[in-house]
Amino acid sequence: MKVSVKTPATIANLGCGFDSFGLALPLYNVVSVEETVLPGSGIEINIINEKNNTDNELTDVATDKTNIVYKAIELLYNFIGQIPNELKITIKTQIPIGRGLGSSSSVIVGGLIAANELLGRPADQKVLMSIATEIEGHPDNITPAFLGGVTMSSWEEDGSVIYRKLPWNDDWKLMVCIPDYELNTEISRSVLPKEVPMKDAVFNLKRSAMFVDALYNKDEELLKLALKDKLHQPYREKLVPGLSDIMNNLKHTNGVIGTVLCGAGPAVLIVYNGINVSEIKEIVTNSWNYFNVKCNFMNLPIEKEGASIL
Amino acid sequence: MKVSVKTPATIANLGCGFDSFGLALPLYNVVSVEETVLPGSGIEINIINEKNNTDNELTDVATDKTNIVYKAIELLYNFIGQIPNELKITIKTQIPIGRGLGSSSSVIVGGLIAANELLGRPADQKVLMSIATEIEGHPDNITPAFLGGVTMSSWEEDGSVIYRKLPWNDDWKLMVCIPDYELNTEISRSVLPKEVPMKDAVFNLKRSAMFVDALYNKDEELLKLALKDKLHQPYREKLVPGLSDIMNNLKHTNGVIGTVLCGAGPAVLIVYNGINVSEIKEIVTNSWNYFNVKCNFMNLPIEKEGASIL
Repeated sequence: MKVSVKTPATIANLGCGFDSFGLALPLYNVVSVEETVLPGSGIEINIINEKNNTDNELTDVATDKTNIVYKAIELLYNFIGQIPNELKITIKTQIPIGRGLGSSSSVIVGGLIAANELLGRPADQKVLMSIATEIEGHPDNITPAFLGGVTMSSWEEDGSVIYRKLPWNDDWKLMVCIPDYELNTEISRSVLPKEVPMKDAVFNLKRSAMFVDALYNKDEELLKLALKDKLHQPYREKLVPGLSDIMNNLKHTNGVIGTVLCGAGPAVLIVYNGINVSEIKEIVTNSWNYFNVKCNFMNLPIEKEGASIL
Repeated sequence: MKVSVKTPATIANLGCGFDSFGLALPLYNVVSVEETVLPGSGIEINIINEKNNTDNELTDVATDKTNIVYKAIELLYNFIGQIPNELKITIKTQIPIGRGLGSSSSVIVGGLIAANELLGRPADQKVLMSIATEIEGHPDNITPAFLGGVTMSSWEEDGSVIYRKLPWNDDWKLMVCIPDYELNTEISRSVLPKEVPMKDAVFNLKRSAMFVDALYNKDEELLKLALKDKLHQPYREKLVPGLSDIMNNLKHTNGVIGTVLCGAGPAVLIVYNGINVSEIKEIVTNSWNYFNVKCNFMNLPIEKEGASIL
């Protein structure tokens, strides 16, 4: 028996919502899990590059038991007191790797849902989310990969993931700007300080409230304020050459609601109201050109549905 | 001509919402401003103690030009290029002073609205809020004093106050527990650190999003989480003997949704779902008794309307 699951790309850390807010995009990885084959054949993991990545970018992905999809599936087996013996895992990738678009969360979630199906659904969604978050380290990519849409989530001290889906105004368009280099999430996390100024903490907590209120009321003025951040982006600017230029140059561009880093970077998300597309692209292209960075643009709606079994 | 304005008590810093969330209570001060009298009679300020304060508690309130109501009114006059000459300000107080119930915001807002009426409404609400916030230092008591209800607000770098009113589920009841001593707001602010752990900043920003979402969806489970805080209450516990006992003892009491400090303290707000009133009171009474603190309970609904001209 073989189960395949399609899971969307996601953008986490949206503006003020470090480790909290995420959204799903209609760009997918597919994970297939097969509990077949010949006894003793062990674990087989194949990566198939469909598009948006170079073969070179995929060579670093582990295909042994250190693979994150395998590790997530192993935790699920452990949850029901088993260990996986013979498994064939196939990962077809379309989500760009190492850009901040949730490629790892996508395959973790896909693998878990597929394995859970294979096992006869021993775990509910809450348990799957906890396992996925344990592997990923934070839930803000995991939740939208499961649910689609825009989500807020929190990994609580008891190991549970608290999550809610938020509404989104489809008049707000997304432009994802993907530069031609990767940024390792661990490195991007390592530049964040252990302590932050109280006033920055208060700045973000206010904006976090504004973000939710703006979404419920389709309030563009409030969303503009809510997409600002003082807790992670300022520290990551040095790892993403051109980011501060892009943000400054787009600050007063007509139509732009906000410019934020995608996850831990280096991709950039521009939320805008549908006008001035070519001017926005030109500003981003020119800002990155200065640093010899080429950029791929994707205009995408929100993926509303999340992971689905094929 | 004389204008009198009635303004409600308020509770700020609600749980996770340090300097952000506030609510109004049906307990009022009345400020009357008269621009009368004999030329050269100068500024006259009278404080009238109606209830809930001892005369002794009011003796520290300034009745000269350092009085905060006068200072706010002076800023309004300056805004239109004038200075106040002859003014009689009368403040009738029912809101307990120095407990964290917004008595100062109440009279600032009342005085400003009254003076603005006297002057023929030169300032709109946004300007009045900015002036009030400049005197008070933060907007989270000011906004609900103006608007009533539950509010989120932020004093932006350009001096403007951004605010939104939030819905409230009337099934959630409020019990205000007012101890028999005052706590100076400046002292209570001085114990807060300039820097805080990043993880505490993220803890509160997540809860701030939960708070807004919980209010829109009448989501009690989420509100329970949202009323937790790591940015101000833990530091203030040492200034409010019994606070940590009250919080711990109420954590698992049936019916209690959350226990938070009112503003900068020392009053405590318990949000509960209407049951176990006597058990809750007994826990608070006993916790404070141990520290020889007597307590006055007020079961109050939210004041929905805010300041009004009489």
